[in-house]
Amino acid sequence: MNKNVGQSVNRIDAQEKVTGKALFNADLKFPNLLHGKVLHSSIAHGKIKRLEVEKALKIPGVEAVVTGQELDYLGGEALKDMPFFAKDRVRYYGEPVAAVAAVDYETAVKAVDAIEVEYEELPAVYDLDEALKEDAPVLHPDLENYEHIKACQPKAGTNICNEFITEHGDVEKGFAEADYVYEDEFTTPACHHAPIEPFSAIAKIDEEGLIKVWTTNSSAHRLRKDLCDALRVSQNRLQIMVNYIGGSFGGKGGLKVEPLAIALAQKTKGKPVRIVYTREEVFTATLTRHATKIKIKTGVTRDGYLTAKSIELYYDTGAYSEKGPTVLIQGCEAAGGPYRIPNLHIKGNCVYTNKTIAGAYRGYGVIQPTWAFESQMDLLAERLGIDPLEMRLKNALEEGDPNCLGNPVYGVGLKECLEKVAREINWDQPAITDHPSIKRAKGIASTWEPTKTPSGSGVFIVLNFDGSVNISTSSSEVGQGSRTVLAQIAADALEVPLKLIDISFPDTHVTPFDASTTASRTTFHMGNAIIKAANDIVKEIREIAAEMLEVAPEDIILDNATAYAKSNPTQVLSYKEIIQAVYGAGGCILGKAFYYPAAKGAGIYGAPSVFWMFGAHAVDLEIDTETGQVKVNKVAAAHNVGKAINPLNVIQQIEGGVVQGMSNCLFEEIIRDDKGRVVNPNFHDYKIATAADIPEITPMIVEQADPKGPYGAKGVGEPAINPIGVAISNAVATATGVRLSHMLLKPEDLLSKLKEKL
Amino acid sequence: MNKNVGQSVNRIDAQEKVTGKALFNADLKFPNLLHGKVLHSSIAHGKIKRLEVEKALKIPGVEAVVTGQELDYLGGEALKDMPFFAKDRVRYYGEPVAAVAAVDYETAVKAVDAIEVEYEELPAVYDLDEALKEDAPVLHPDLENYEHIKACQPKAGTNICNEFITEHGDVEKGFAEADYVYEDEFTTPACHHAPIEPFSAIAKIDEEGLIKVWTTNSSAHRLRKDLCDALRVSQNRLQIMVNYIGGSFGGKGGLKVEPLAIALAQKTKGKPVRIVYTREEVFTATLTRHATKIKIKTGVTRDGYLTAKSIELYYDTGAYSEKGPTVLIQGCEAAGGPYRIPNLHIKGNCVYTNKTIAGAYRGYGVIQPTWAFESQMDLLAERLGIDPLEMRLKNALEEGDPNCLGNPVYGVGLKECLEKVAREINWDQPAITDHPSIKRAKGIASTWEPTKTPSGSGVFIVLNFDGSVNISTSSSEVGQGSRTVLAQIAADALEVPLKLIDISFPDTHVTPFDASTTASRTTFHMGNAIIKAANDIVKEIREIAAEMLEVAPEDIILDNATAYAKSNPTQVLSYKEIIQAVYGAGGCILGKAFYYPAAKGAGIYGAPSVFWMFGAHAVDLEIDTETGQVKVNKVAAAHNVGKAINPLNVIQQIEGGVVQGMSNCLFEEIIRDDKGRVVNPNFHDYKIATAADIPEITPMIVEQADPKGPYGAKGVGEPAINPIGVAISNAVATATGVRLSHMLLKPEDLLSKLKEKL
Repeated sequence: MNKNVGQSVNRIDAQEKVTGKALFNADLKFPNLLHGKVLHSSIAHGKIKRLEVEKALKIPGVEAVVTGQELDYLGGEALKDMPFFAKDRVRYYGEPVAAVAAVDYETAVKAVDAIEVEYEELPAVYDLDEALKEDAPVLHPDLENYEHIKACQPKAGTNICNEFITEHGDVEKGFAEADYVYEDEFTTPACHHAPIEPFSAIAKIDEEGLIKVWTTNSSAHRLRKDLCDALRVSQNRLQIMVNYIGGSFGGKGGLKVEPLAIALAQKTKGKPVRIVYTREEVFTATLTRHATKIKIKTGVTRDGYLTAKSIELYYDTGAYSEKGPTVLIQGCEAAGGPYRIPNLHIKGNCVYTNKTIAGAYRGYGVIQPTWAFESQMDLLAERLGIDPLEMRLKNALEEGDPNCLGNPVYGVGLKECLEKVAREINWDQPAITDHPSIKRAKGIASTWEPTKTPSGSGVFIVLNFDGSVNISTSSSEVGQGSRTVLAQIAADALEVPLKLIDISFPDTHVTPFDASTTASRTTFHMGNAIIKAANDIVKEIREIAAEMLEVAPEDIILDNATAYAKSNPTQVLSYKEIIQAVYGAGGCILGKAFYYPAAKGAGIYGAPSVFWMFGAHAVDLEIDTETGQVKVNKVAAAHNVGKAINPLNVIQQIEGGVVQGMSNCLFEEIIRDDKGRVVNPNFHDYKIATAADIPEITPMIVEQADPKGPYGAKGVGEPAINPIGVAISNAVATATGVRLSHMLLKPEDLLSKLKEKL
Repeated sequence: MNKNVGQSVNRIDAQEKVTGKALFNADLKFPNLLHGKVLHSSIAHGKIKRLEVEKALKIPGVEAVVTGQELDYLGGEALKDMPFFAKDRVRYYGEPVAAVAAVDYETAVKAVDAIEVEYEELPAVYDLDEALKEDAPVLHPDLENYEHIKACQPKAGTNICNEFITEHGDVEKGFAEADYVYEDEFTTPACHHAPIEPFSAIAKIDEEGLIKVWTTNSSAHRLRKDLCDALRVSQNRLQIMVNYIGGSFGGKGGLKVEPLAIALAQKTKGKPVRIVYTREEVFTATLTRHATKIKIKTGVTRDGYLTAKSIELYYDTGAYSEKGPTVLIQGCEAAGGPYRIPNLHIKGNCVYTNKTIAGAYRGYGVIQPTWAFESQMDLLAERLGIDPLEMRLKNALEEGDPNCLGNPVYGVGLKECLEKVAREINWDQPAITDHPSIKRAKGIASTWEPTKTPSGSGVFIVLNFDGSVNISTSSSEVGQGSRTVLAQIAADALEVPLKLIDISFPDTHVTPFDASTTASRTTFHMGNAIIKAANDIVKEIREIAAEMLEVAPEDIILDNATAYAKSNPTQVLSYKEIIQAVYGAGGCILGKAFYYPAAKGAGIYGAPSVFWMFGAHAVDLEIDTETGQVKVNKVAAAHNVGKAINPLNVIQQIEGGVVQGMSNCLFEEIIRDDKGRVVNPNFHDYKIATAADIPEITPMIVEQADPKGPYGAKGVGEPAINPIGVAISNAVATATGVRLSHMLLKPEDLLSKLKEKL
């Protein structure tokens, strides 16, 4: 009866969080805790000539030291190329080289300082173009020997850890049919996730060899699998537990501090070892977003219809593949844009460089092509003399259209998004300013985003004897509100009040497999699993109630944890009475489900996206032509979420995405010196948007239902970040005639372009 | 293929435990932990005239004080009569009156000492007969207002908290058909469970009001229900977590320290409060076994066949009902004995006295009637001149016979047990001793034991992507080996190696409902649940494998986490390959089951026992007629366990039961002064058998399968304690002609009887 679905109920964790009582990983206390500290590489590329740990081991209070030389593990989701600690070679500044565990943090720091390491530097490569050159230093000479999944195709002897090619239609034919063919090139910089909570993990090996890990990792089961694969232990012998996570944005899903803490814990005879990264370590030794270079060649008719696109994409993945190979795939699949494109050719390369690993970042490789195709869309409109909004509406995908990959899409609503943001921003009205040196204009951009497919979500539900509910799920609360949204779905699916629902935290020993808390997939996948598992329970409740009320199960109405017959609404049975009628001495009703939306046999990224998300942003901004400073006045952001399970939560996701995307485009840059060392690994020097930078934002919800979604819902977390940057850039270009191809609108760069133009 | 079932595999927790690494509740560490300490009543019965806590509250470091005056909760499984803390009246020496939480234990002790309490003493009653008198002090004047379950029938205005009456056949007709009718009376003393681990609980109320409890309680879900009922919170808002338990013997299943810790934690603004009882508190303020008085009137033919029994039972339940009402029911149901008795009448009373609460104790009320009916069986044999073994064999129940309640029994094997122990003890041979003052003889006794019925067990199983298994169960490991046995059942049901199975600890938020870890029910109930849940998984595995191998699912053989077709054993698929074939991107196969062996609507103890356990013990002993000292030379103990899932474990259960039962009968006595105060609340003064007292024991396993049991198995934990004491008494009577009707063979009592006889 949708009592909760569609309602902006308060987050179930609101009070805990605003009062500071919510437990995060580093808050956990353990007896006999040892403090782990990591020694990171001080160079970007080199051989380890000498690594002496004896002085460190002799420091009183040091209980374990571990180096890569004694370990033989390789991790990685798609391609197993990453040692826990550098073995004989370091490949980026910040790479773990050794670690110590000591009775207190100060001793651990002292011990790390006492480790002696000597490198023989090797030529390093920090740039995509350089890394692709024939004579480039090859980071992984063993590339051909690494294990990899089918969807990942490394090219031995090069720095390409995955080459992805796909096509649809006949791109040459498409260019021949075009009136004009334009080729443009765009680039995007690396940036950092900037979660408030640093990465941490506690590892403990119990007497029976069970490896227990408490971590900030967003994807407990994926972590379990990757660690078990690396350590060669079975999955019932490694337990991952996760509490609240203080922001992930895609960054907290890989093997980061966990394998390091485990390697130490394996030497401490059962004592737990905790590693909490400092802010500098989070910046240098965890993850960035991929810098990219994207070339788009597009055929278009003179009245503005797209006929073909041929796109080349290069993703700079840093020193190890991590999730780079699949980030590339998802970026490539979205690279055409949310438009009718009958002919498409895509070629993508994921490329090693001697930098911090690039991996999952909100958008999973799609913000970069969005920058490219939406910059070009405005260029095309300008070249053809068509209004940018009209240009997009002409080509926008509609319900059931085949997308550029040839797969039909549903739950689109893109035109509605475009029209809504245009109306909100008064697209038809001129943008007026009376300040002589200030230019004002409007910009628009759309986006789409697939989700990783196939991917599975499992859930167990217990309807307790008193009608309350416990749900075992491995979905992580990373701040996105999943606990609340999943509880709302469960409450309606089970027809019980929200307050009777409890949602677990991930614990791989008891909460069943969930692929990951990424890819904007939780509401859709776990929501579907919950509905499916709830059906087990609802069916049993109906059958019992039907027997008790002497009607058919179909005639039973469930409402507010009670059941009654359509024909006699006055005789009402509570769930408690119903359960008690069968299990009088105590009992429960159980539900289980594993939701996996794909044909058999499809491996990771082996099937077309089960849903696509669509959205559009429009901005009204001013640029000061004397300083190059951009000031965003207003943002309108519309997303088709299928169905807003919790509208307030959707609005917050959209606002968060807009702010983060705007911050990326206006401020964020990881700066390295000529030795590949990060020079701004902290929030003083790495600038992100603050409250003062945030413009008026009007989030708007479109609800063109996804036919497979729970109550029609799909995701919104990722696409909300994609179009804002390029909408800003498009507005700047409209205002000034100046367009940067690089996705970072630094005032000095804008200014120099403006001066060039004069 | 029964690779594990039937094998004496080592306990999966063996190494952890022998190395001292296994975590017990009091080992858990918490930040900001407060230490709770309880003030107990120093008198047996009285009104609380004055209770001043202000001095305690003023002591620096004291963070909370709680008394019964501010609480309005009543707990109890069958009858809600017990406040968390005495409210206006104390009813036994040791009853909780108040408690404090302080920053350290010493401060808590000091604060408890500073609480001022003044009582107005009331007449107290310590004896069953006294308590039943018309003018006896009534402990619970409010008895008629207490909530209770249907199976519990309190009698307002008396000290009877449950009266249970049942009959089968026509007992008067049965007596008329008898050649002789004999009436005998027996008594049994209270005794203590004596677990090595004391009771403890940690309670913490989180910011959202979720009540978390870590406890030594053996029955997490029952505790959750009882606490939620008392506190009036829904079951999803209270979480019980249990680790290893250091011995329970039935004692750790009620509301003991948990409600006290919660009451304190409700005042500490989120800080956890731990209460660990001292040995003295465990003795005085937790639980004892019921003292009983049992009158049996039996009709018998001259050739030794039983025609009728009329039995009156009185169970002394102490100051609150706790589990007394259902202990009484189970005792009554077993009181006829494991014999063909066509006509039966039972009347049982559960009676309040001003003593420590009596409740569940290994055997759940059955060791007492076993003492009575097996003492009488030897008396009957003697009176009729029939050999005691023959007397039992004549009357013993056989497969499918109706028992004395009229319900057919299966998986009996009693005659085999009797014959086995008789053979082992050389029953036919005289017991010879050449010492003039020492008498030697053999004794025999049998027993049976029902299990609480109906009762439910739920389980979730995850078959992981790599073929390993995680099982979520609320069964507690109290030392009985359930983790190992359940893992063996799961391994065979799923056809995976034992080492790939992980069994959870109870956590009511994620491990589904299980009625209790009591009543020898775990192997049977949870075993059946595991097999049922495993079938979900096996079915799916078979279907996938059948499709892959292009055969019918019935043609698939599962073995060692692989599947192959009968017709082609060379093409073998691992479970991993099978799961991967369907869920290539990652996944699992889920199973769930709730096993509840009873017709709909049956409440607690509302259905005939789903299985009965049968066993017999025989002893060869000597008694020194100059000292009254009994020395057991040898014990043969045979039990029909249906199927020994782990024979070593069964043997250990039998040995443990024999030692505990022998200790009960020879040594154990709770001594009170004339004010009702326990004077031996410690292991110096309360004597239990030590290693030096343990005779040669030959445990023997009989395997007459229970048709409903998992692999035919049922329980053994409880019946193993029942017959040893009376077998000893029977041997003493044979040796000396002296028989005590009271189940405590104190040398001084035997000696005075021996002297009487001379």
